[in-house]
Amino acid sequence: MAYETAPICGKLFADKTFSFPIRIYYEDTDAGGIVYYANYLRYAERARTEFLRHLGLNQQEMLAKQKIGFVVHNCSITYKTPAKLDDALNMTCKITELKGASLKMEQKLYRQDTLICNIEVTLVFLSLNNMRPSKIPPEIFNLLQ
Amino acid sequence: MAYETAPICGKLFADKTFSFPIRIYYEDTDAGGIVYYANYLRYAERARTEFLRHLGLNQQEMLAKQKIGFVVHNCSITYKTPAKLDDALNMTCKITELKGASLKMEQKLYRQDTLICNIEVTLVFLSLNNMRPSKIPPEIFNLLQ
Amino acid sequence: MAYETAPICGKLFADKTFSFPIRIYYEDTDAGGIVYYANYLRYAERARTEFLRHLGLNQQEMLAKQKIGFVVHNCSITYKTPAKLDDALNMTCKITELKGASLKMEQKLYRQDTLICNIEVTLVFLSLNNMRPSKIPPEIFNLLQ
Amino acid sequence: MAYETAPICGKLFADKTFSFPIRIYYEDTDAGGIVYYANYLRYAERARTEFLRHLGLNQQEMLAKQKIGFVVHNCSITYKTPAKLDDALNMTCKITELKGASLKMEQKLYRQDTLICNIEVTLVFLSLNNMRPSKIPPEIFNLLQ
Repeated sequence: MAYETAPICGKLFADKTFSFPIRIYYEDTDAGGIVYYANYLRYAERARTEFLRHLGLNQQEMLAKQKIGFVVHNCSITYKTPAKLDDALNMTCKITELKGASLKMEQKLYRQDTLICNIEVTLVFLSLNNMRPSKIPPEIFNLLQ
Repeated sequence: MAYETAPICGKLFADKTFSFPIRIYYEDTDAGGIVYYANYLRYAERARTEFLRHLGLNQQEMLAKQKIGFVVHNCSITYKTPAKLDDALNMTCKITELKGASLKMEQKLYRQDTLICNIEVTLVFLSLNNMRPSKIPPEIFNLLQ
Repeated sequence: MAYETAPICGKLFADKTFSFPIRIYYEDTDAGGIVYYANYLRYAERARTEFLRHLGLNQQEMLAKQKIGFVVHNCSITYKTPAKLDDALNMTCKITELKGASLKMEQKLYRQDTLICNIEVTLVFLSLNNMRPSKIPPEIFNLLQ
Repeated sequence: MAYETAPICGKLFADKTFSFPIRIYYEDTDAGGIVYYANYLRYAERARTEFLRHLGLNQQEMLAKQKIGFVVHNCSITYKTPAKLDDALNMTCKITELKGASLKMEQKLYRQDTLICNIEVTLVFLSLNNMRPSKIPPEIFNLLQ
């Protein structure tokens, strides 16, 4: 395969916290010299996606074949210290509540031991045809437990 | 001037709510066919910037000359119904609390009378040299009242 | 309607150049203090979309109902002088070549009379089901002439 | 360190082509179901940054301490086949011309052996104080050879 590299992987820790590496590039920063405030939500979503992939869930397949998927209903973010160009960070992801058609996650972004921001997010499981909440299928529910 | 157009303007309503037009382009959407969840925070920041500009505040000047500026400390967003490609929306912005070194705003995104999302944001006034909170100067405080 | 504002409009000039206003926000800039180089392509696409809308073409409808649309095949951008935070710019858009299944446009971004960048783009008309070039339907072709 | 993961690394091949892994997330895609056309330039810049880092160049330090840096003067991109959600790609980066104050790179994005797009970019070395071209310092020039 053409110029193949090692894939980017996250890691699941013993306390069921998943962690995923995030590198800060020019695209992430703004004229204040720090990461633009909306971009942290991108990193949160990358970590959630990789967490689901690590658990064996394929979102592209869920989207294309079954027209179902997790959609963010609510999220809250508190900024502790800004991230900067070239920073090597870790975004964590931990399920804190799992219900029939929704779940809550707590996510934290670290530069080594420095907390950059923390994020609480509520995801709802939706049928994308009618954009209405739908019961999480048992095979997916079991993976998330 | 080369191919000049009318500038994009918002509007301040009698109840002190500022409103700013947002159009949804391909860049705003994702493979789910709806606006990507982090992008709503961009529109919120455009509306806040235009609100401050409307009040007579120039952020570029504050940033470049005085090394001061408002930074988001916390924000919370609840998604009600998704926005889609080509939507013509209005993002509102209203100050709900004004303190010595911080303020709170409530922001709502509408498609006509349909609420797309609402956002609560806490902004802290910072000295950008040391990234520490700083008293809002009286001339800026007065504009915000 | 809730907090309604005037819509953002572009303008078609006598030489068949369309022009659309672009304002630069924090989201557009990077840690170098200038607009991030990829973002100019977003403004180009906004102007193209508004140009097509001005001509009476609805891309959302073409995408949803007919599964057809214009896709960028090639683009080339030359950066002349950087745009900065708070800049009020105009992005132009002019068809320079129109063929059966493709067209070329020249786009220029100006701050008053200062050229920020120029962009040449080749668009191909595609059937989105098979991602293959398709003849531009006569009713669309006529609008573009 | 808090929830530490393996860093994301690229790889330098024997023919002096650098390759860097790119994963496609929701943030990268648009309502057409494919990667938004401007985002490929982000991946190109990530690969260039990691290439420079791999060679021992720290852009953040160049920017902050010496107020110098590489800026894109021109780039041209040809789209071959679209990338999609969840794709695992490799963006390559190879210097094809090195002059006193500028260099050219050829970059290609692959899904395994399938070419997604190719990009030609001309970078100019600038003094950021006056935004004027500046001779590439010998210690940097030597690293690039």
